[in-house]
Formats: sequence, structure tokens, C-alpha cells
Amino acid sequence: MNNFTYYTPTKVVFGRDTDKQVGQLVKEQNCKKVLIHYGGQSAKRSGLLDRIKASLEAEHIDYVELGGVVPNPRLSLVYEGIELCKKESVDFILAVGGGSVIDSSKAIGYGMTNEGDVWDFYDKKRQATACLPIGAVLTIAAAGSEMSDSSVITKEEGWIKRGYGSNYCRCKFAVMNPELTMTLPDYQTASGCTDIMMHTMERYFDQSRTMELTDGIAEALMKTVMKNAVILRDDPKNYDARAEIMWAGSLSHNGLTGCGSEGGDWSTHRLEHELGGLFDVAHGAGLAAVWGSWARYVWKDRPDRFVKFAVNVMGVEPNGTDAEIVEKGICAVEDFYRSIHMPTSIKELGIDVTDEQIAELARKCSIAAKDNLGKVKVLHEADMAAIYTMAR
Amino acid sequence: MNNFTYYTPTKVVFGRDTDKQVGQLVKEQNCKKVLIHYGGQSAKRSGLLDRIKASLEAEHIDYVELGGVVPNPRLSLVYEGIELCKKESVDFILAVGGGSVIDSSKAIGYGMTNEGDVWDFYDKKRQATACLPIGAVLTIAAAGSEMSDSSVITKEEGWIKRGYGSNYCRCKFAVMNPELTMTLPDYQTASGCTDIMMHTMERYFDQSRTMELTDGIAEALMKTVMKNAVILRDDPKNYDARAEIMWAGSLSHNGLTGCGSEGGDWSTHRLEHELGGLFDVAHGAGLAAVWGSWARYVWKDRPDRFVKFAVNVMGVEPNGTDAEIVEKGICAVEDFYRSIHMPTSIKELGIDVTDEQIAELARKCSIAAKDNLGKVKVLHEADMAAIYTMAR
Repeated sequence: MNNFTYYTPTKVVFGRDTDKQVGQLVKEQNCKKVLIHYGGQSAKRSGLLDRIKASLEAEHIDYVELGGVVPNPRLSLVYEGIELCKKESVDFILAVGGGSVIDSSKAIGYGMTNEGDVWDFYDKKRQATACLPIGAVLTIAAAGSEMSDSSVITKEEGWIKRGYGSNYCRCKFAVMNPELTMTLPDYQTASGCTDIMMHTMERYFDQSRTMELTDGIAEALMKTVMKNAVILRDDPKNYDARAEIMWAGSLSHNGLTGCGSEGGDWSTHRLEHELGGLFDVAHGAGLAAVWGSWARYVWKDRPDRFVKFAVNVMGVEPNGTDAEIVEKGICAVEDFYRSIHMPTSIKELGIDVTDEQIAELARKCSIAAKDNLGKVKVLHEADMAAIYTMAR
Repeated sequence: MNNFTYYTPTKVVFGRDTDKQVGQLVKEQNCKKVLIHYGGQSAKRSGLLDRIKASLEAEHIDYVELGGVVPNPRLSLVYEGIELCKKESVDFILAVGGGSVIDSSKAIGYGMTNEGDVWDFYDKKRQATACLPIGAVLTIAAAGSEMSDSSVITKEEGWIKRGYGSNYCRCKFAVMNPELTMTLPDYQTASGCTDIMMHTMERYFDQSRTMELTDGIAEALMKTVMKNAVILRDDPKNYDARAEIMWAGSLSHNGLTGCGSEGGDWSTHRLEHELGGLFDVAHGAGLAAVWGSWARYVWKDRPDRFVKFAVNVMGVEPNGTDAEIVEKGICAVEDFYRSIHMPTSIKELGIDVTDEQIAELARKCSIAAKDNLGKVKVLHEADMAAIYTMAR
């Protein structure tokens, strides 16, 4: 068991009508001017933005707005946000949306409180020393960014997608009203459920033994996500299922499911990052397309974890050889993904990836990981290319 | 499913040798003078206090000391601590010990930042509006006070034991080195494990359905505690088991295992509070002595929860009537308590409680709860007396 630090200072305000508390929550932060940062038209159409503005106005809090965040949020909008915040003397960012909006907010927050180019942090050239305070009103259960220390931004020049993490960017509060996720397209709901699964799976498949309690929590979380993802496929307005998925999304990525581990194996996320950068696919769908191939490529380096996962999470009977049990477990995950209409190959993402593109994906992934990716099995460029090929 | 707020800002630094980081962690809090608050001689004898002082001195942090905290921490020492802190201009309290020391620190922290008598808060006469910042170096896994919002103090005059909770008192950091718990007497280890179990059980037996994810986490936690409590009975120096219990202790009482519930049913804790106030028993042992009688008295008001608990946590086969399954579940809990040498009656606590004392316990408990205790079944004075009688 490894030493660990667990730090989740975000105040979670969870449940129906909680978005009405936004003004009060912002006021508790003693800020003077808020940037309301959001994505497309849905936050406007649904009336959510108007409710938030009314809540801020009721507390006499001034604000400016910046919409236009897209999935795989862009560096150019981050620069625009920094400029706007400087011009308007913004001292608090309110992210209204999902992971992309929160991640974009975190990047703007870094840019406001650190000298130089904010991309340097994502490019691992230097470390941030502060971040503007951020609050989130979550509308998509997926990325877990509302409680996590991480942020992922895509630089348009070369379509490079990179993550950066620090405790400075952890949200001061997160308002989570499951009702706000009810109007999401089914594909996005399913993609979010996949992302949530993967945040815990990437921690579960670790080189160490982690802790029993961590494993038990992780297993409960994964089973809850799978059960409720299927409920939402058939009944997207089911409040309780929306709530289970939303809370699982936060706990899956706030560090809880990795306590005592060696930090997890984030290969599938990194392999997907390159896919997402090059083809702009939905993050969760990209993860589903790649995971099975990664698992089949690496399981022999840690059969005990893959057997435990198959039995405890996927309900595989513990009979037969390790290889049989593990393969049944991987197939069960793929069956689950298919059942919620997620792809299990790059082709099913609608992409006919060429040999040249696979080489490019592997090369970029290898550069980003300094040719040293993962913990269950350390992957080099040739391994990455092999996994992309298996997944095509 | 109910709305909830989840707020656990405490930075947990967990693992071997982490107590060496105390000076640095205190320094991050930008304080000028620390009160080192502790219990008896064990912290001195073990060298822990010396290590902590060296760690503070290395960061040039000034400190004063106040030892002498006892189980069921006393109000008189709290007053003494407040006086000392005022005289010495202390602005940070470092609690070195278990729940009693942390609770005493919280009470001193309230007293330092609020006018008037600090007992008023525990007596529910008014609310605190602040607390001095507190850090904990945990040496006993039990109360969960290192991450909780609660504090329990005993007033010697009338031996009245009362709890008070607010977010102000949540620790800034908690240093958790499982090795520090290895020298605890076996009885105290077992009593701590019982307390940890009960913090989740009191949340689990709730009037609402809570959330599936919360239930899954709670069930994993309770199973982990029972398994590792038995390991520690036979092998008290087992690091991994100490670590599992220590982390379970924090998660059991930081709010995680109650998310989405109606707040849980804290009857067993309140019934024990009176026992602890009158007879000064170990808190966990007192809980073990009372729980089975409470469960048998109330289960019919919520058979589904008791059946779920029996099957998912205690491994009872789901065959037979509810009454049979529930009774098997309660017996399994009592068997577990006996297996770690915990009492399952007041007599086994070494107390021959008289009819008059039972009447007094019920009367005091009823006054404290305004004759309205619990959620699974609301208990009045006569119910409390009946449960004490069943438990005698």
C-alpha cells in the first residue's frame, strides 16, 4: 500500500433546484466580478443561464459572459477568456456546463494568475503557482472536472490535446442538479457514463495492490454506473439514475477511487487523447473504442487485477484459467459498452483510420508520454501502434 | 433520494512517516503560534511529541503545550485551553491524539473565536460563527473527528455529554500514519473499529432509500472494517490492516456514507452518550453494548433496510421471513463484536445498571433529544428505557 494525499476541498451542493443557490455560493467567495463561462445554446435555451444571472443579480454580483466552449476545449478561447477577464477585472469564474467548460475555466484561471503563456503548463514546461477561484454548475455528468485537479485543453495548431493538474484549480463549489442533465442527447449521456467508468478503471488497474477499501469503493462505483447507464438508455428522465451517475462522476475522479494506489494506469486516456485531438471524437466514446484492445494487450502483466475485476465488477464466475476469466471480463465490458451504443473499435467511431494515421497517433502519444506510458505494462511507441491497430 | 451538501476540505496526508511533514503543513497555514494539544503519556513516551516539536522548530514555528485530554474529553480542560491560548496568543491548534483530543481542540477553537461560554454551543443554545484553524496528527482510528464536523464534550457537573457540529471546525489537515496506532491496547483498537462500524451503520439505517452508490460504498466500508478488525485482533502490528481501519475511520464519518440520505438515525450514539456520560465507558464498547437491543426494538419500522444490511454486509442467505433474516443479521453483528472482545450488553461493560439508573439514562437522553430521537423509529423516553432494559 502506498502513501497518499487526499484533498477534495470542493463544496458539493447536490440535488433538485440547487442551481438557485449559485448567487449565494458566489457571494460566500467574496468576489467582485464573475465570468460566466459556458458552451453552446442549450444553457441559454433551457433558461439555466437566465436563472443563474437572476441568482447573481439578487446578490448584487456583477458579471460578464463568454460562451462558445466546444468539446475538446480550444486554447484560442482560453486566450480570449484571459483577455476578457483582465479587461473586466474578473476575480471569479463560474463554469456553467460539463468538463469542457470547467477545464476551459481552469485554464483561464491559470492564465489570470500566472505570467507568460498558459499553454506552458499543459506542455509541461513549468508549474502554475495559483489559479483564479472557480465554481461550477454542472450540466453533464462525465469528466469529473468539478472535483478533480485536472484540466485538458486542445491547441488547434497541430491539434495537440494535453492535460495539466494542480490543486490550485479545484473548484470552490460545485452545484449538481441531476435534472440539468436530463436533456442531454443519449449518445452524450452514454459517452459520459463511459468516461466515469474509465476514471475508476484507470485507477483500478494499478501496479500496486491499492487498498481493500479503495477497491471496494471502486467496485461499488463501477457497478452503480453500469446499472444506471442502462436505466438511462431506456428512461433518460429517471431522476434517481441521473443522480447516481452524476455523483459517481465526481467521486470517480476526485481521487477517492485511487487512495493507496501507485497512481493508476492512464494509458487508455492518453491513447484516446490523441484520437480526440486528431479526429475530435466524444471523449467517452473514444475511451470505449480503445479500452478492450489495451486490456488484451497488457493483462498478462497483472492477471490478478484483471481476474479480480472480472469477478467482482463484471460478475464473471471464477472458474477456468486466468486467460478465460480475463477475456470474459473484457468481453463483458465491451458488451456493456455496446448495450449503451458505445463503440468498441475506432471503426465504430466512424473513422477508417489509415496506417499513416496510426503511426502519427502513436508518435504523438509517445512524444507526449516521453515514450513511457502506463503502469500495468509500460508502453512504447511500437506498443501504442499495436494497440491502435488492434482497436481499428 | 434527498438533496445533500458534501464538504470535506481536510487535506489528508496518509501513510508511513507522514508525521514528519507536520511542521511544513502547519507553515502552509501561515500561523504564528501553535497549541500542541494531547492526551496522556503515550505520545511523549513514543517520541511522537518530540518528533512533532522538532518538525515545528525546523520551520521556526513557536508553540505551547497542553496535555491531559481523557476519553470523553472534559469541559474543564477546554476552559483551561481557551485561557492558555488567549494568554499565549495561539492562532493554530495541533491536535495530537484520537477523537477526544481533536474534539477538545475543536471546543477550544470555538472558545477562542466566539464570545461567551463555549458550552452554549453543545447545549444547543446558540450557533458558533467561527473556529480557530485546527490540524490533527491522528494516533487512534475511531472517532473520525479528523474529517468530521462534529465534536463531543463532557461537562463534569452532572456528567452531561453533548455533541456540536459545524463546518467551521473541520480540520485544515489530518496527518494519518497507521504505524502510530500500532501500540494501542487491543481493547481500544476493537472499540475504535466498533465506532467506525457504527458511524456508517447509523447512516445506513435511514428512513429514506439513500443512494445506491452511497449504499455500495457503505457496504464496502463495513465489510472492510470487520475483516481487518479480526486481522488486528490476531496481528496488531499488521500495517495494511491498520491502514484500512484508519482510512475507513475517516471516510465513515466525513459524510460520504450518508450522501442522499435523510441524515441517518443516530439513536445508538445518543443512547451511548448517556452511558458514557454516567459511567465513563469506552465509546465504541458502549455502542456495541446497545446496538443489538436498538436494532431488535426498531427493525420492524424499516425491514427492507435491515434485510439489505443482513444480506449485503453480514452475508446472511436471503432465505426465510424478514424477521428471520434480520435476526440472523443482528446476531452476526453481535458475533462479530464478541469475536473482537466487545460487549453486547451493558453487563458485559462491567456495569450492573439499576432500574433507577436506567430511568436516569432515559430521562437524560430524552431531555437531550427533546423526547424525539431517531428516524427509523422515533423514540420517546419510555422507548429509550425499554432499549436500555433490553441491553442491560
